[in-house]
Amino acid sequence: MAQDNLTAVLYKTKDLRLEQTPIPEIKDDEVLLRMDCVGICGSDVHYWQSGACGHFVLKDPMIMGHEASGVVAKIGKNVKNLQVGDRVAIEPGVPCRYCEFCKTGRYHLCPDIEFCATPPFHGNLARYYKHAADFCYKLPDHVSMEEGALLEPLSVGIHACRRGGVTAGDVVLVLGAGPIGLVTMLAAKAMGASKILITDILESRLETAKQLGADHTILVSRDSNEAELVKKVHELLGEHPNISIDASGAQSTVRLALLATKSGGVAVLVGMGSSELTLPLAGAVAREVDIRGIFRYVNEYPIALSLVASGKINVKPLVTHHFALEETLEAYEVARKGLGIKVMIHVQPRDSNNPTKF
Amino acid sequence: MAQDNLTAVLYKTKDLRLEQTPIPEIKDDEVLLRMDCVGICGSDVHYWQSGACGHFVLKDPMIMGHEASGVVAKIGKNVKNLQVGDRVAIEPGVPCRYCEFCKTGRYHLCPDIEFCATPPFHGNLARYYKHAADFCYKLPDHVSMEEGALLEPLSVGIHACRRGGVTAGDVVLVLGAGPIGLVTMLAAKAMGASKILITDILESRLETAKQLGADHTILVSRDSNEAELVKKVHELLGEHPNISIDASGAQSTVRLALLATKSGGVAVLVGMGSSELTLPLAGAVAREVDIRGIFRYVNEYPIALSLVASGKINVKPLVTHHFALEETLEAYEVARKGLGIKVMIHVQPRDSNNPTKF
Amino acid sequence: MAQDNLTAVLYKTKDLRLEQTPIPEIKDDEVLLRMDCVGICGSDVHYWQSGACGHFVLKDPMIMGHEASGVVAKIGKNVKNLQVGDRVAIEPGVPCRYCEFCKTGRYHLCPDIEFCATPPFHGNLARYYKHAADFCYKLPDHVSMEEGALLEPLSVGIHACRRGGVTAGDVVLVLGAGPIGLVTMLAAKAMGASKILITDILESRLETAKQLGADHTILVSRDSNEAELVKKVHELLGEHPNISIDASGAQSTVRLALLATKSGGVAVLVGMGSSELTLPLAGAVAREVDIRGIFRYVNEYPIALSLVASGKINVKPLVTHHFALEETLEAYEVARKGLGIKVMIHVQPRDSNNPTKF
Amino acid sequence: MAQDNLTAVLYKTKDLRLEQTPIPEIKDDEVLLRMDCVGICGSDVHYWQSGACGHFVLKDPMIMGHEASGVVAKIGKNVKNLQVGDRVAIEPGVPCRYCEFCKTGRYHLCPDIEFCATPPFHGNLARYYKHAADFCYKLPDHVSMEEGALLEPLSVGIHACRRGGVTAGDVVLVLGAGPIGLVTMLAAKAMGASKILITDILESRLETAKQLGADHTILVSRDSNEAELVKKVHELLGEHPNISIDASGAQSTVRLALLATKSGGVAVLVGMGSSELTLPLAGAVAREVDIRGIFRYVNEYPIALSLVASGKINVKPLVTHHFALEETLEAYEVARKGLGIKVMIHVQPRDSNNPTKF
Repeated sequence: MAQDNLTAVLYKTKDLRLEQTPIPEIKDDEVLLRMDCVGICGSDVHYWQSGACGHFVLKDPMIMGHEASGVVAKIGKNVKNLQVGDRVAIEPGVPCRYCEFCKTGRYHLCPDIEFCATPPFHGNLARYYKHAADFCYKLPDHVSMEEGALLEPLSVGIHACRRGGVTAGDVVLVLGAGPIGLVTMLAAKAMGASKILITDILESRLETAKQLGADHTILVSRDSNEAELVKKVHELLGEHPNISIDASGAQSTVRLALLATKSGGVAVLVGMGSSELTLPLAGAVAREVDIRGIFRYVNEYPIALSLVASGKINVKPLVTHHFALEETLEAYEVARKGLGIKVMIHVQPRDSNNPTKF
Repeated sequence: MAQDNLTAVLYKTKDLRLEQTPIPEIKDDEVLLRMDCVGICGSDVHYWQSGACGHFVLKDPMIMGHEASGVVAKIGKNVKNLQVGDRVAIEPGVPCRYCEFCKTGRYHLCPDIEFCATPPFHGNLARYYKHAADFCYKLPDHVSMEEGALLEPLSVGIHACRRGGVTAGDVVLVLGAGPIGLVTMLAAKAMGASKILITDILESRLETAKQLGADHTILVSRDSNEAELVKKVHELLGEHPNISIDASGAQSTVRLALLATKSGGVAVLVGMGSSELTLPLAGAVAREVDIRGIFRYVNEYPIALSLVASGKINVKPLVTHHFALEETLEAYEVARKGLGIKVMIHVQPRDSNNPTKF
Repeated sequence: MAQDNLTAVLYKTKDLRLEQTPIPEIKDDEVLLRMDCVGICGSDVHYWQSGACGHFVLKDPMIMGHEASGVVAKIGKNVKNLQVGDRVAIEPGVPCRYCEFCKTGRYHLCPDIEFCATPPFHGNLARYYKHAADFCYKLPDHVSMEEGALLEPLSVGIHACRRGGVTAGDVVLVLGAGPIGLVTMLAAKAMGASKILITDILESRLETAKQLGADHTILVSRDSNEAELVKKVHELLGEHPNISIDASGAQSTVRLALLATKSGGVAVLVGMGSSELTLPLAGAVAREVDIRGIFRYVNEYPIALSLVASGKINVKPLVTHHFALEETLEAYEVARKGLGIKVMIHVQPRDSNNPTKF
Repeated sequence: MAQDNLTAVLYKTKDLRLEQTPIPEIKDDEVLLRMDCVGICGSDVHYWQSGACGHFVLKDPMIMGHEASGVVAKIGKNVKNLQVGDRVAIEPGVPCRYCEFCKTGRYHLCPDIEFCATPPFHGNLARYYKHAADFCYKLPDHVSMEEGALLEPLSVGIHACRRGGVTAGDVVLVLGAGPIGLVTMLAAKAMGASKILITDILESRLETAKQLGADHTILVSRDSNEAELVKKVHELLGEHPNISIDASGAQSTVRLALLATKSGGVAVLVGMGSSELTLPLAGAVAREVDIRGIFRYVNEYPIALSLVASGKINVKPLVTHHFALEETLEAYEVARKGLGIKVMIHVQPRDSNNPTKF
């Protein structure tokens, strides 16, 4: 086996390095993966720029990367679902399998989950990486390695929609048209939402949203009047959205979600902004608008794969930038500047593992 | 107002007549409708041929028709949601509004519901018909009167899928590719099902199903071996369907639904066949496959309309035959022979009320 | 019929008067009730003291009273569920029966609901009152008129628990031991909660809570340290509550609910305090603690009645003060001072309509 | 450590022997248990008398016992939830932790679950037995070892009620007053059911049911008229049960469940009788009566323990017979004859491990 294991390691704030690390040894229920595609997420940029994300704080050097796909290079002796050579998408969190959360189908809330590139756990932006075999999902030939990596953000969008109960005929307000807002919109449409209005502070993002299928858009600014925004949402949709999904985390968008949602509806909060928010909660209470936060995803990878494989969702347009592993710092710089939508790092020469070429 | 009120009245088994009836007087919360499109349903043919359908029995002459759309000709003084001239789809059942079922959101189970063309209640295959205004749904200009009439069977399909909990990534087995099987398939796809296998005893229906989007089909016959059919379902899908929907009502298809569904899944029964069935229930019990029957629909008309209006579902290909009101008997004869899929009766000259012409 | 119709009318802030009003005329689906018991609610005191409650504002003189029971004096010609002489509990809100909320089983959110003693609708603190017959529930002989009136607050508690999904084995934190906190606790116990911790700022209320079955209590004060309170909740219960129900509406208790609830649990908000609250929402989002407000109740009166009639819940100890209709102002004064728990006004001489005497 | 490991081994049909077996070696996540109480279940008697139960068939000698409690004698090095000396209830099925069912909170449907005394897996009717530590639940001092063993059947009853959605105000029909019917009734009451009617073919069992809290009983016989039974159920309850739970498995009781349940209600099937049943399904379909089978339990042990520990359910009266391990054959003989309700085998001298003595 190749001994090159070039790896992107975050030593501390603003100190991201490429260096060789040992190729990991696998356990009986694990596989060794030759990594292929690894996307950059907003949280990656947070760790890089500030050494923290939410209440997770970087203490020791950490390998980056958690939106990823790879090819099975070696399998543990108990592995039955995969074979060497299988192309797989990697669900980055592996829970303890023993606690109450794991047993009740909410393993994403397991306090002992080991999640890629969340301190103190290493990620997979490296030539080689090992992972629990049952959290690797074999890709059909017509699904590309890039799409495999994109199942990660897509799973977040699907989880948001499942938590919101999006189904046929729903009228959905999505706050924020960044990568998560866009995958949430794609998921909502695939689940039957009949009308989607999406907001953002950048016109360019709204343009992308329209191309991806948004029915209505609103450009908001710091000066937007709250009551007028609510009115505009209702006017554009011709009715009140029964589900609002905040993919921004700003106090202003959370407030808009609570105020604009139909009585008896649901406001889903995906983004995590400042820890304390001032909210018009009494109205939401009196109108029984439920508020549901989301944390990552749970059991959504297989759904994401089936939606992509069946062609119901096309995630390819989300990738706007491509870099080789050796160009990782440039890639992070582009992601930091918020250029484009999704930045993809190719650990292998681009397209090498896709049977169906671009 | 015109005095012509040509009406299709079923006097008794095999005695369907066209004759003049009085134009109805409306109450304060009702509208008078100038009828436009009225589809023929399997139950209509049952009443005509046998004088009964399930436990409903024809005792007195009854006006036929319940899959319908019309134009508002007059409104009661309390009506606020409609205006004269509005083109509407008609949800044919009006519940009591007072009982426990009405109050808990399951008004379709109201024992006092008055449902068009279900004895002893008259239907709407006539020039004029009156209906509760709140059960009439205004059609946008780009939705045709035919589509309005087709919301009725589509609502059945949506109700079946909602009862089954169809959502993103589901693998669905539909038993029977008649009109109800087809609308169920369309609804399941719109709600995110990633794979659909549909079965029927007629190759021609399976062809239609494929054109409408079925991923897999199986032609079954009276001689089909049950265990082999189950195996074939699993092989074609590459996995076990987590939801099966029987749109046939035959003992053989209900059995197939129970046997083929994945453990922990749901078998939805739409069709009503013979009152007593012999079933392999112990297996379904031990594998926790839930069995859920459906009765018509409830709160699904607005969903059906939004799915059609947003273009997520195209019901137009379902209509294979067109007749004028005066040709009602010929239309019923075509429906009886099972030719085509949906037979539509035009009370007004075809297309007259559609702003967007065919 | 008697012509005395002494009635408690709130003219404006702090101007509550007893005066004669006309006995109402009933419609076909209504009953005339000879009122018996009417409890005083916190909202009644709000209207009396400030002329408003939440966004409802008193503009014209309004008859008070909405926690009530009475005896049927006359029935409309369409009424089938009741007879003259029936003793009934009165669900005080009558919805429009036509809107989307009414049809989907959430009639309490109907924008046109007419709710007793909520401006501009009159209440039932009078000798005679008329009401929709289907919102009157016949009491069995062994259920007293007082218990009938208490079904109103109990329904709030049941609605809170149903919204929270309280079921067997749940560990429930109730914030606030006033009348609503207490009925919520009783409801939670009846639905299978295995442990209940209740908090309040008054030791006397916690004493009552203990007598009614609280497993643990915490006395809180303005100076309580938030983090220490959370820790104390977890220590006393030996685990994290999976459901928290705030029956106070204060920012401090809503915060405690969000912070103390187990990951994946539910925080139910019953109380409505100030319209804007500053909350540690990011934590609740990341731990997927759902936030669900409640508004009154829906379909809970029959449940409340069955729980009282079957002896599963004993609401009698909640009534600490009794007054005759003529003593209404004294009764309101006692309620305003927060003495005791529930103040009951007897429109008829106490106990006159109870077949089973105290 | 003691070397005596007297064990009850079923060699083949009607060949149950007591013999010495090796004390098992534990893995890192397991504990060795000194067994205390082991109840006898109907399935145990089935294996003993016929060598099979449902589709499970005895092929090799199998150690009996799955309703059990014990004391921790040794812990694996990864075990953190238990200590040597802890008294525990043993949930007898250990799933694979890797499959879709395990990840979605339905581990009881895991195809690779290893369940005590279900071929080919050994049970725990022995002096020593090893088990996954996380499926052992520590008993508080005031909960006896017998109660610990009884958590197993109680979990079945709770699972049946949770699958049926039993909650406050429900009116429940339980078919069959054997051990499972009785624990189901106890669970339903603890979850808020306001009225329970239970049926059986033995008057003695109905007597027990009444003592344990049944509101109504019906003695049925082979000659009972189906339609009259339905009528009697409705008359006794004064309404239709919204949930029916069949704890018998006979065709006649499953039919009664379908026919008697209220429209829109649920029929839960716990018992597994003959593999093919002839049922009046069309009526259940048209009235939307859901049919839900149950298989063992999932995540219900902690609930069962909390209900017993909090005193909400008293299972002690269910044990009618006591035997020592050495008397296992006599115990089985008593169970086979259907004498009493639950037969308990004491592996340790009775009461030795209960801090609170009887």
